[in-house]
Amino acid sequence: MRNLTLLTDLYQLSMMNGYVETNTADKKAIFDLFYRVAPGLDFAVVAGLEQAIQYINDLRFDDDDIAYLKSLNLFGDKFFKKIHNFKFTGSIRAMREGEIVFPSEPIMTVTATLFECQLVETALLNIINHQTLIATKALKVTQETDGGVAEFGLRRAQGADAGVYGARAAMIGGCKSTSNVLAGKMFGVKVTGTMSHSWILGFESEEVAFRTYARIYPNNCLLLVDTYDTLHSGVPNAIKIFAELRASGHKPVGIRLDSGDLAYLSREARIALDNAGFSDAKIFASGDIDENIIASLKTQDAKIDMWGIGTKLITSYSTPSLGGVFKLAGIYENDKLIPKMKFSDTQEKITNPGDKTVLRIYKKDGMAAADLIALKNEVFDTNKSLTIFHPIETWKSKTFTEFSLRELPVDIFKDGECVYNSPTIEDIILYAKKCKDEFWPEYKRLINPHVYKVDLSDGLYTMRQALLKKNMLLRSYE
Amino acid sequence: MRNLTLLTDLYQLSMMNGYVETNTADKKAIFDLFYRVAPGLDFAVVAGLEQAIQYINDLRFDDDDIAYLKSLNLFGDKFFKKIHNFKFTGSIRAMREGEIVFPSEPIMTVTATLFECQLVETALLNIINHQTLIATKALKVTQETDGGVAEFGLRRAQGADAGVYGARAAMIGGCKSTSNVLAGKMFGVKVTGTMSHSWILGFESEEVAFRTYARIYPNNCLLLVDTYDTLHSGVPNAIKIFAELRASGHKPVGIRLDSGDLAYLSREARIALDNAGFSDAKIFASGDIDENIIASLKTQDAKIDMWGIGTKLITSYSTPSLGGVFKLAGIYENDKLIPKMKFSDTQEKITNPGDKTVLRIYKKDGMAAADLIALKNEVFDTNKSLTIFHPIETWKSKTFTEFSLRELPVDIFKDGECVYNSPTIEDIILYAKKCKDEFWPEYKRLINPHVYKVDLSDGLYTMRQALLKKNMLLRSYE
Repeated sequence: MRNLTLLTDLYQLSMMNGYVETNTADKKAIFDLFYRVAPGLDFAVVAGLEQAIQYINDLRFDDDDIAYLKSLNLFGDKFFKKIHNFKFTGSIRAMREGEIVFPSEPIMTVTATLFECQLVETALLNIINHQTLIATKALKVTQETDGGVAEFGLRRAQGADAGVYGARAAMIGGCKSTSNVLAGKMFGVKVTGTMSHSWILGFESEEVAFRTYARIYPNNCLLLVDTYDTLHSGVPNAIKIFAELRASGHKPVGIRLDSGDLAYLSREARIALDNAGFSDAKIFASGDIDENIIASLKTQDAKIDMWGIGTKLITSYSTPSLGGVFKLAGIYENDKLIPKMKFSDTQEKITNPGDKTVLRIYKKDGMAAADLIALKNEVFDTNKSLTIFHPIETWKSKTFTEFSLRELPVDIFKDGECVYNSPTIEDIILYAKKCKDEFWPEYKRLINPHVYKVDLSDGLYTMRQALLKKNMLLRSYE
Repeated sequence: MRNLTLLTDLYQLSMMNGYVETNTADKKAIFDLFYRVAPGLDFAVVAGLEQAIQYINDLRFDDDDIAYLKSLNLFGDKFFKKIHNFKFTGSIRAMREGEIVFPSEPIMTVTATLFECQLVETALLNIINHQTLIATKALKVTQETDGGVAEFGLRRAQGADAGVYGARAAMIGGCKSTSNVLAGKMFGVKVTGTMSHSWILGFESEEVAFRTYARIYPNNCLLLVDTYDTLHSGVPNAIKIFAELRASGHKPVGIRLDSGDLAYLSREARIALDNAGFSDAKIFASGDIDENIIASLKTQDAKIDMWGIGTKLITSYSTPSLGGVFKLAGIYENDKLIPKMKFSDTQEKITNPGDKTVLRIYKKDGMAAADLIALKNEVFDTNKSLTIFHPIETWKSKTFTEFSLRELPVDIFKDGECVYNSPTIEDIILYAKKCKDEFWPEYKRLINPHVYKVDLSDGLYTMRQALLKKNMLLRSYE
């Protein structure tokens, strides 16, 4: 197992040493992990929790970690005493993997000593930011398709972890399989893939390459048809081989288009396959595809049954970072929580103070209607009506009468012990689908999605306004 | 050590099994790793070779890898016999880390059995694509600055490897340090970082937070001044603390701006620091910065001495994938090389056949003038003149009389043995700087860079044209 304990920013260690030196290291604090409004990230699919849990459980400073830190000549003896036999003792609440989350909602809340919170900030952000980003992109890509999407991006991923954990996240976001064999081994997800152009080029002709492949994989025969000339060579050769397969009692899978005008080529290939009696043969498309290209191909009546998505998915090309942050929400002084918030002239950058939770409001039809970021100790009575209001444009309000509430975060760690059983990947995938289906398509569409309401509870709004006033920052709007 | 042997696409294993089944697995082949023309990637800085070498050296199929592959029910007994005790036996030539490379130039050439070539394709692409991408972005970012750039992106990187190896690549591309402690430990590169907003918020006031920090780190006192109000609180408090530091015989490092209008704030902060007698105090800027923002800030006379670059660098946000490919260039039949190439209607997608090398042509002043992709066995006489011509617009030619040549690829593996000593990271950084300085700024500027000539040698051009004609693809241009 890799030791990721030093997977952190130096300033975390500088501050941890600073807390030790000022005898504040053991003060308990609350930090929230969330992301802010960003283009293309109106909502996100939570992923990475299982790896975050592993990271917390595996935290330890090895001898060579300590030797390295000593070599920096930055930290005092008390610091080294504290990291010797270090173990995380805090509590963590988090949203489950597959949950749909909106900007400003805490995906994860860490209640631990200042020392511990600073240590884990960077790695937790790294893990959750990455997998949540890719799961979100995968949802956007897969929801544009009727058929299945295979994740194909390993060669273009930003390093091995980006490929492996990106494949995992892509499955949570809706992909049906991955080409990544290591991901298949590590997570038990389905792996797929047949041949590349080099297979075709390695034989004296395309026809021989196809026939040889069909002989070895008679029941898994998906032929790549664009090496020489898709419509004049690839498709006719594939049909010839498919006929041979059929004659020997096997059913061909289909063809793969990897370049050219996919709308035109897929329509022509469909006609050729149908005319040859292979209406069941699927057309698989790959090659620099993303959700916008899929949407465009659909309007052009492209005949594509399955998709292989590489670069654009595994890097979340259009928005390659989630931008999640980890912000102080409070510090305990003598067991009393002093709420804290970061101020900013930019409204969106002001954080929410206090120990919080997120409630999803459902209407009678079971569909999600709005979210409420609330204080953990607030009580809501679903027998009464509930009025929510916009946190900035406060005159905009909405009242729910028949509704139900679901609290999104669950306990993950309590006083250092993991109290959460990570579901199997199959269960996470099912859960993600269930969560996604609770939202009307209007909220998820690519262009101008309807804005889903995320409001603050009365308790949180009041706390926030009081802190803003106290810090006299409201005057900057005068 | 992590076993990355299964870090590959399933189709590689399907093809490897296919080669075994057709008794062609041990045929020797040549594959080139290169990238194609892409926006923002007119040139690239090679990085990742050391990790590619480690990957090749560590290749082994563990018992649990084999058990997993057996569970897929795709591969035959002969395949499993072949991967038992597998060891790479091929040869690899590659450009050194830090080398400047252009589209179509082989960064790496693998000569090995078809079986081996398919196995290593995906992981080599993953490693080289990622680090080369980030090193290139780092060059673009750092060349816009006069001072130093610190890499700050771990929390926004696409997984742990993206953070760690991205930090390494960023140093090769020109960054002076990284915040990533694990990268510091693994590669011996300089780590930097001081405090975040949570440090400030953890104290009763900004002034107390600053004073406390200065007491603990009197010689490394860089204060983050934007938590409450940069010019009305942060900078005056920093100056107060700097005065106290000076009184106690210490020299403050400076301040960090992390939000707001960096042009305005840095100019005002500079005036305030200068007026207080702290002309030596540096101004450090961070917060969603990239090369274009730096260039813009320079035109606004921003007073920024040092930069912390996070998201935009560690993800290469504007172009988050290099798009490198690994293409068959030839197959040996009875020790005779049969050159191979991939055809395409898109001129840029047609590959270069044969066993190739890359020569850089230097003028008398020692500056790079053009590159030539040539066949490995071609001989060039620098005592004679050399005429090169554009590979498509062949009427465009250029003749060099007084020139020198440097062959860019070097031997890395010979018959399975590594024959290359990876330089220290310090030497790689120096080499990268030397390579970069061989190019006039016109080739490297952000907007409309001058196109650097990369032509084909007579031998390669002739081979390519013959293959194109043979495949009757020239007719598609009729």
